[in-house]
Amino acid sequence: MKNLQWVVASTPQGKVGLEHFKLVEGEAPVHAPNTVLLRNLMVAVEPANAVWMKTKSYIPQLMPGDLVPGFGIGEVIASDAGAFSVGDIVEGHVGWQNYALVQPKILRKRNKNVPLDQLMGLVGISGITSYYGMIEIGRVRAGESVLVSAAGGAVGNIAVQIAKIAGCKVFGIAGGPDKCAWLKDEYALDGVLDYKTGDLAAALKAACPGGFDYFFDNAGGDILEAGVDAMKIGGRIGLCGVVAQLDGPPDQGVRGVPLNLILKRIGMQGFLLSDYSHSQRQAAEDVMLGWAREGKLKAPMHLLHGIEQTPQALLDLLAGQNRGKAAVLL
Amino acid sequence: MKNLQWVVASTPQGKVGLEHFKLVEGEAPVHAPNTVLLRNLMVAVEPANAVWMKTKSYIPQLMPGDLVPGFGIGEVIASDAGAFSVGDIVEGHVGWQNYALVQPKILRKRNKNVPLDQLMGLVGISGITSYYGMIEIGRVRAGESVLVSAAGGAVGNIAVQIAKIAGCKVFGIAGGPDKCAWLKDEYALDGVLDYKTGDLAAALKAACPGGFDYFFDNAGGDILEAGVDAMKIGGRIGLCGVVAQLDGPPDQGVRGVPLNLILKRIGMQGFLLSDYSHSQRQAAEDVMLGWAREGKLKAPMHLLHGIEQTPQALLDLLAGQNRGKAAVLL
Repeated sequence: MKNLQWVVASTPQGKVGLEHFKLVEGEAPVHAPNTVLLRNLMVAVEPANAVWMKTKSYIPQLMPGDLVPGFGIGEVIASDAGAFSVGDIVEGHVGWQNYALVQPKILRKRNKNVPLDQLMGLVGISGITSYYGMIEIGRVRAGESVLVSAAGGAVGNIAVQIAKIAGCKVFGIAGGPDKCAWLKDEYALDGVLDYKTGDLAAALKAACPGGFDYFFDNAGGDILEAGVDAMKIGGRIGLCGVVAQLDGPPDQGVRGVPLNLILKRIGMQGFLLSDYSHSQRQAAEDVMLGWAREGKLKAPMHLLHGIEQTPQALLDLLAGQNRGKAAVLL
Repeated sequence: MKNLQWVVASTPQGKVGLEHFKLVEGEAPVHAPNTVLLRNLMVAVEPANAVWMKTKSYIPQLMPGDLVPGFGIGEVIASDAGAFSVGDIVEGHVGWQNYALVQPKILRKRNKNVPLDQLMGLVGISGITSYYGMIEIGRVRAGESVLVSAAGGAVGNIAVQIAKIAGCKVFGIAGGPDKCAWLKDEYALDGVLDYKTGDLAAALKAACPGGFDYFFDNAGGDILEAGVDAMKIGGRIGLCGVVAQLDGPPDQGVRGVPLNLILKRIGMQGFLLSDYSHSQRQAAEDVMLGWAREGKLKAPMHLLHGIEQTPQALLDLLAGQNRGKAAVLL
């Protein structure tokens, strides 16, 4: 069995490009004791892929020659681990490759009755991140004004819908008139602001003069700065991404931190989905799947086909070209 | 009765200097219905004085000709307000002047049995801010590692002692070897880092390799940035001042926000003492006075004499020359 794998060719100094990846062809791994062998079905591309290449984070920075790590969904084709049997559908950090030989502890069994794209988008890591970002970190309540950045992206897209379900007034930030118009119509948002045109802080204040109660930010940089400026006194900010900072110049810092946080008594909380247990995630999934069945929640996918397309899918994502979850179907 | 008043001469563009203040001599105000006439005994100088001159905050930016507002303690010399009688000692925003004619609602009656310097330092706005910053916002617990910036200042100085009383390992940041040595000896701190020498982030990591559970920041800017870098996963940051940013170039922003907050799941909370009610403050005061009686809590004062000295006292404060609460005795 032929295995195509993406490895790091070199460390990006500035913008991530195709030249930083190399496709390597080899044999699929052979099953070994205490492991699970997977055929990968779909791999995600995420802003985190760029973070891992550019800096040390919760994992060491990637080095040339390293397999590009990435979240994905696979089918078990060999296993001697009691928890996983041939034919099971599992998720985990399986890497950008066709076949993966992994430790059972990194895998999580998924429900075969849920379609693959829903497993990846609606109740995959980005969908559940949206849930926690809005419900647990944001604690949004009906009537509150909620702002979501990167609202066209995998997390933001679901987050705006959850805020709507919670009865909030919901505003999004996205890039470009087409994406903004799509978001506003598709999800009946109360306002969508285009960060590519004019003064975002002024536009936010005009759209919601009373200020935002909660800002769920996945962008960082200038977008976070503008959002801080438009918060209400006592407002809350949830942080789980920096997509606006990944392909730009080195971190310029967020002005207004801490002065605006003090003057407006704002709380800011960073979080990662990995802090939630599998059982907590299952509870969130059940709620999300229920909303989807009732037609309240959609999870659009930005799908490319074939492992060869994976780096391009990441570049598309970093350029803001995706609507919803970006992934590659193998 | 002669009244000396400090008014704003001009708006500072960069560093605050004596040229931005003008001393005006006039007659003391005459008591009018529904007011309280005070003879001011002591006025505070605070970083907030510089904020109010340089920018809009929770009050409009000060304009040339405005009386310099400021917190102070006075004695009632005329009153027709039921809550206040001649001879009462009161606190409030009485301004940089010898006599103040004010609305009764801005005043709070103080206990005459507490010495004036304790009313200003230990249980004045900075002391109580320290209490809330450490106990309510910080929720510090015995055994935690706590970092306090501007540790030689009015708030930080009390804050390190409260953290010690709570059983924490306590580290301070201050400027200059003398102040650092004084802090370390005076309060038996576990470490004091000099922000004026070398790489503060590296020094913080060396002093507390496991990272800080709580960082109570009154500095902002580069000091906040270094502190964020040295936090533990799941750490908390309380924000209530920006003294390091007040006399420097325009806000450069804090790098590592939001990425480090996300990767380390850090929560940051801005607060102001004005959000706490008088009865909440009284409860905190009783605790603080108890600690002082038991010899556990000291509140050094940096006192200048005569209303003429007030702008100079502010400049000393902005230059970091005070140890403890800076105020002017009239």
